[in-house]
Amino acid sequence: MTTTTLAGTVATQANVYFDGKCVSHTVTLADGVRKSVGVILPATLTFNTGAPEIMETVAGKATIKLAGASEWQTYGPGESFNVPGNSSFEIKVEGEPYHYICHFG
Amino acid sequence: MTTTTLAGTVATQANVYFDGKCVSHTVTLADGVRKSVGVILPATLTFNTGAPEIMETVAGKATIKLAGASEWQTYGPGESFNVPGNSSFEIKVEGEPYHYICHFG
Repeated sequence: MTTTTLAGTVATQANVYFDGKCVSHTVTLADGVRKSVGVILPATLTFNTGAPEIMETVAGKATIKLAGASEWQTYGPGESFNVPGNSSFEIKVEGEPYHYICHFG
Repeated sequence: MTTTTLAGTVATQANVYFDGKCVSHTVTLADGVRKSVGVILPATLTFNTGAPEIMETVAGKATIKLAGASEWQTYGPGESFNVPGNSSFEIKVEGEPYHYICHFG
């Protein structure tokens, strides 16, 4: 199941990374939990994490390699992957944009 | 004054236009009013409107020419421009991304 909506307060200024290859908006839920909803355009990028992250795929697909992993794995709608804190992952998006929710903590 | 947050329900799948030069997320307020928060990357684009729109600048700046207008006008943070329904406008963004809220109706 894909999460299609999030109720909360949206920051109107986006987060723009990698010259716009990744654009996200931060959403703060009623209980104070912070998430972001975003898009990654076709590209191969390396993201660093501070807090641990769960990346939930909303639409499209992405192929991921976590720091220290030897294999790439592909995730589609409704599928998630976990990234440890203070780590990194490579993400490869081809063809269509990848839409995600990033859950922190 | 710039609107820094919007409270409502955010669609987790983004709207991606012009190969990602424009990415927005739709927000539905508690009273059912629909808005979008988005980013336009450096580019010159032509947007068509269905409903009338008020484009509120959150960050960055954009230079606009409405359909039928002879002059370009530049808008920065806190400034808005109105676009009639069933019309169009050209928008030129240079250097930094343009962050906006689109108010419909």
